[in-house]
Amino acid sequence: MASKKTRLKVFSLGGLQEIGKNMTVLEYGGDIIIIDCGVAFPEDDMLGIDLVIPDFTYLTKNKNKVRAVFLTHGHEDHIGSIPYFLRELNVPICGTKLTLGLVETKLKEHNLTDVDKVCISPGEVVEAGVFRVEFIHTTHSIADSVALAIYTPAGIVIHTGDFKVDYTPIQGEPIDLQRFAELGREGVLLLCCESTNVEQKGYTMSEKTVGVIFEEIFRQSPHQRIMVATFSSNIHRIQQVVNSAIKHKRKVTVVGRSMANVVKTACELGYLDIPTHVLVDVTEIKNYKDDELVIITTGSQGEPMAALSRMAASDHRQVEIKPTDKIIISASPIPGNEKTITKVINALMSKGAEVIYEGLMEVHVSGHAKQEEIKLMHALVKPKFLMPIHGEYRHLKQHKDLAVSLGMKKENIFVMGIGDVLELTEDTARINGAVPSGQVLVDGLGVGDVGNIVLRDRKHLSQDGLMIVVVSLDKESGQIIAGPDIISRGFVYVRESENLMEEARGAVRSALSDGRDISEWSYLKTVIKDTLKEYVWQKTKRSPMILPIIMEV
Amino acid sequence: MASKKTRLKVFSLGGLQEIGKNMTVLEYGGDIIIIDCGVAFPEDDMLGIDLVIPDFTYLTKNKNKVRAVFLTHGHEDHIGSIPYFLRELNVPICGTKLTLGLVETKLKEHNLTDVDKVCISPGEVVEAGVFRVEFIHTTHSIADSVALAIYTPAGIVIHTGDFKVDYTPIQGEPIDLQRFAELGREGVLLLCCESTNVEQKGYTMSEKTVGVIFEEIFRQSPHQRIMVATFSSNIHRIQQVVNSAIKHKRKVTVVGRSMANVVKTACELGYLDIPTHVLVDVTEIKNYKDDELVIITTGSQGEPMAALSRMAASDHRQVEIKPTDKIIISASPIPGNEKTITKVINALMSKGAEVIYEGLMEVHVSGHAKQEEIKLMHALVKPKFLMPIHGEYRHLKQHKDLAVSLGMKKENIFVMGIGDVLELTEDTARINGAVPSGQVLVDGLGVGDVGNIVLRDRKHLSQDGLMIVVVSLDKESGQIIAGPDIISRGFVYVRESENLMEEARGAVRSALSDGRDISEWSYLKTVIKDTLKEYVWQKTKRSPMILPIIMEV
Repeated sequence: MASKKTRLKVFSLGGLQEIGKNMTVLEYGGDIIIIDCGVAFPEDDMLGIDLVIPDFTYLTKNKNKVRAVFLTHGHEDHIGSIPYFLRELNVPICGTKLTLGLVETKLKEHNLTDVDKVCISPGEVVEAGVFRVEFIHTTHSIADSVALAIYTPAGIVIHTGDFKVDYTPIQGEPIDLQRFAELGREGVLLLCCESTNVEQKGYTMSEKTVGVIFEEIFRQSPHQRIMVATFSSNIHRIQQVVNSAIKHKRKVTVVGRSMANVVKTACELGYLDIPTHVLVDVTEIKNYKDDELVIITTGSQGEPMAALSRMAASDHRQVEIKPTDKIIISASPIPGNEKTITKVINALMSKGAEVIYEGLMEVHVSGHAKQEEIKLMHALVKPKFLMPIHGEYRHLKQHKDLAVSLGMKKENIFVMGIGDVLELTEDTARINGAVPSGQVLVDGLGVGDVGNIVLRDRKHLSQDGLMIVVVSLDKESGQIIAGPDIISRGFVYVRESENLMEEARGAVRSALSDGRDISEWSYLKTVIKDTLKEYVWQKTKRSPMILPIIMEV
Repeated sequence: MASKKTRLKVFSLGGLQEIGKNMTVLEYGGDIIIIDCGVAFPEDDMLGIDLVIPDFTYLTKNKNKVRAVFLTHGHEDHIGSIPYFLRELNVPICGTKLTLGLVETKLKEHNLTDVDKVCISPGEVVEAGVFRVEFIHTTHSIADSVALAIYTPAGIVIHTGDFKVDYTPIQGEPIDLQRFAELGREGVLLLCCESTNVEQKGYTMSEKTVGVIFEEIFRQSPHQRIMVATFSSNIHRIQQVVNSAIKHKRKVTVVGRSMANVVKTACELGYLDIPTHVLVDVTEIKNYKDDELVIITTGSQGEPMAALSRMAASDHRQVEIKPTDKIIISASPIPGNEKTITKVINALMSKGAEVIYEGLMEVHVSGHAKQEEIKLMHALVKPKFLMPIHGEYRHLKQHKDLAVSLGMKKENIFVMGIGDVLELTEDTARINGAVPSGQVLVDGLGVGDVGNIVLRDRKHLSQDGLMIVVVSLDKESGQIIAGPDIISRGFVYVRESENLMEEARGAVRSALSDGRDISEWSYLKTVIKDTLKEYVWQKTKRSPMILPIIMEV
């Protein structure tokens, strides 16, 4: 059992001072529980990288302590790293029905079968070592989202997950404000509260307001084919499109692999209600007139391989854009995606289609709490200590300022980085040390085998390409018997610069024939590199990667 | 002289269905004039490219017709290609005083001396072949901006340049609305009107409103050092910072090469008024207390090499960020720069500095007309025909819709692409054919020598790196006498994957020793490529570029 001096430790392996790969860890004595296990998408300078996952070092080293993973909802930045995590540790995964349904699809793709999944409903409490974990119903841009109240020997910790305060959700109850209030009355030690929209004033509108706009668009477009692009996981958004479709006697077809997957899972689990006669396969759309159809598709972020981008590029097998189409992009750009979305919008419009996007009409609302909602959460929970989570530094800092404006003491608020350990007793909290943390890069099948050196080389290659200089030396005499030959890729269009390449070869050749002993390989390589680098810079002001290759025969 | 059938031709070599490299051409019989000559910044997929300039083919082929280049203002997307253009054609460059001052700096950098520059004031008219060109004073985010009225045998063409309707500019007169109205009364054949902000409702606020906010921030920060990052060309913004500095008895220092250049030019030409005792060199700032200083700096777009980014990274030689600094980012992100700016804001904030950016306070206004201002321009000019310019397809299309909503006939509005030729007579207009146009890529000293093949290779190299396989063959026998050796870069961290590389080498070796005749080089290369590609994909799900190199000795 934990000794008298045992303190509760809380730290994050992702989601602090960064967007994505959310993962929070609670440790008390011999017990560890984990909240969420998400992925992040690669930064612009992580060339060729597919995904970024948290560094699990601390958890693998403390394998025998880890009791369970608790999931707040089924978004990629909360569940995406599970397959990688499960390769290291096999522990139970606890979540609501839909969340586990989405995890299941993921596990199948990774051929992971022997996984202990525990389905929990809001209101239920689970024991995990010294901890008891209660699921609290919330509202967010995906169904079946929860916050967690964790009962620890030091006190109650509330982790909000991602949430908004939606009084009129599309399905089910509004966020369970009463339960947050009750726990607040009991006394909450620590609030880990999301910070995504903390820079934005006011309230996030209800999901229902988007349905009203959809209805208006459907009414105004009795003869056009309607297409809606949105996040595949936004089941309530999809439900609202379906509702308008039914009302206007249109069939619905679903395009895009991830959209089809989610719709299938959500229908099976009862989170999406599409009458079978309404859903038609995409191969059958030719049998329907424009005013009898709604197409729901992926690609709202302009992802080049997604269905909408392919349609825009006339590269989709089943759907061709018509000048009479009305296309709704029901999403806002995730920072960094602005230009790809714009590209798709331009391409669709230049095919004559009408495109409606955020800014023109209110076809999207956020799933995250804005300032007034975050204030409400604080007012209900009234925690002793606050740890803002899910945000860049600017968001965490702004969240701190917001809490201070509500009367909280600065010293009770902890703006932390990943790895930083917050240690708590019943009435104290302080940051004390750190555990290993970072970004582990996934490239193809490789996890963590691409690091800074490889990325630096990719960056170099991407900017100016490379030149390879090959020289063959005689094993006995050490004399050059073939070469130097120069091959380049990504440097310059060779046919237009034969002179340049020939002169470069000459420069290397004459540098190598200045009489010095060239049997020393490292010296030879240096001469080749320096000569060519200098020559190419003079002539082109470019610095391709230069690779001297020496063959001894 | 032009025959009876001569038509006015109007086309753009840049700025239609794209952002930047603005360049519009008017041709009548034996005369050509050019309006603006700008650069564009490379798209994300143009790896390693520094700048994008228009394709000048048509103009170099018609050298003897080109009479002059007229510049509307001194922004890079309107003047940046001049040095490249002047290498091909030596024609007079006509512009206002400040615009030519900024061009001069550029010409010096390119060692271009023998250039005929013609300084023209608003209200003046210049003859150029069959054309007469009148400069009309406008307001924009750079001083000395003009629109052009071009008197042609077919009628009057008005080219707005970039503009906003600012009734209270910081310096000089408001935009000359009366002149637009007079010309409208006379009858305007064609309006080429900018479209940047056509998607935005309402009016762009006056530049003066930003000064009010600056004043408020200065008043609220009597003890902090204040830093303002903005576009170096926004002289009026800089003047407003200087005005607040003087009022609050602070010295001003200017940081960043382009900012220093522009401030010098603008002061010399009388567009910026900074008393000498107010301006201090950056090396002297240590002699002043925080409340005696304002630092004006580049880097408002998060450009990695700009001063503000360097300060944020503790990498600036003269300025170190303090926790007591107040930093104003007086700009909005150019699409595509959102993430780099956010990175800088986070870094500054995590040093404890207070950062104020758009969204928190109104510290920036646009330089471009929104819908109501564009409507005003249309109402004054009442052109027969409209050619929306300066915008992506979505902007040009939206501009068309706006004009239709004002009562213009659809068939009189021309949404064009670069190269498309609009042919006009006194009462007709139609698109008839196209001239060569496109994107010419500048990389280092190379202009146009990096094309699709090179970019495709850079892209490939950036994603998965490369593997080089070297084999030496005996000239006589055709037998392998050294190798295969494998070298990789940007593929995988080799020390962690020695097995992989050794096995790959084994796979190639055994493929080469299957008894077939390998003296045929192309066959040998194919075997190496196919074997390695297959092996690497199986093991890693990656596709590095594979380069087989065969040396014959």
